[in-house]
Amino acid sequence: AYHEKVIDHYERPRNVGSMLKTDPNVGTGLVGAPACGDVMKLQILVDETTGEIREVKFKTFGCGSAIASSSLATEKIKGLKVWDAAKIKNTEIARELSLPPVKLHCSMLAEDAIKSAVKDWEQKR
Amino acid sequence: AYHEKVIDHYERPRNVGSMLKTDPNVGTGLVGAPACGDVMKLQILVDETTGEIREVKFKTFGCGSAIASSSLATEKIKGLKVWDAAKIKNTEIARELSLPPVKLHCSMLAEDAIKSAVKDWEQKR
Ligand code: FES
Repeated sequence: AYHEKVIDHYERPRNVGSMLKTDPNVGTGLVGAPACGDVMKLQILVDETTGEIREVKFKTFGCGSAIASSSLATEKIKGLKVWDAAKIKNTEIARELSLPPVKLHCSMLAEDAIKSAVKDWEQKR
Repeated sequence: AYHEKVIDHYERPRNVGSMLKTDPNVGTGLVGAPACGDVMKLQILVDETTGEIREVKFKTFGCGSAIASSSLATEKIKGLKVWDAAKIKNTEIARELSLPPVKLHCSMLAEDAIKSAVKDWEQKR
């Protein structure tokens, strides 16, 4: 029995897609979960003047909980300053979605992907 | 890089759905993968005279590889005698989909679900 919020994000995931990796204002995170072998890509488009995240896109081949976690994560970080986005914790996402313990690594995938995208954007500057 | 057959089954999964669990000719398998916590339900509708599998339905919250494995599995067992369906090996499914080693547990989920559905159907008789 999954929480209705998980089902909702699973069935209508927000911000699925891709942005141009070579755009200097786009940070791309690509991470994997050792527990299950799933992979997630998350991209942010950052306003270079304000540091605000203008757009977020993700793609994953991961499970329902991974899709829900990243869909929720993209909603949470859109509009945030890039340094605040990097502070998002997977426990926050897992709590909002009421993920069971065995599915915590799926929300970790979302946290890792955000951090990795922010890092990629920083390295591009 | 996933094999195109995985992508195809992931994007257009075959035989997704549910059948009436209480139907005496329906066997229901519900199994979980310890590696990732994912769950799969697979159901078969068996012709009581011939033992032929008339219909198959599955549902999973699992990852892309789990969806592809079960989608392919439903295609393989539709029309088979129920005792032949129980012989399907996950290695067969994994090979057809070129799954990487880290994703073998996803194809195992499909094999387990078939076996469990057949067992449920047998116990109902
Ligand atoms: S089980 Fe792999 S991301 Fe959820």
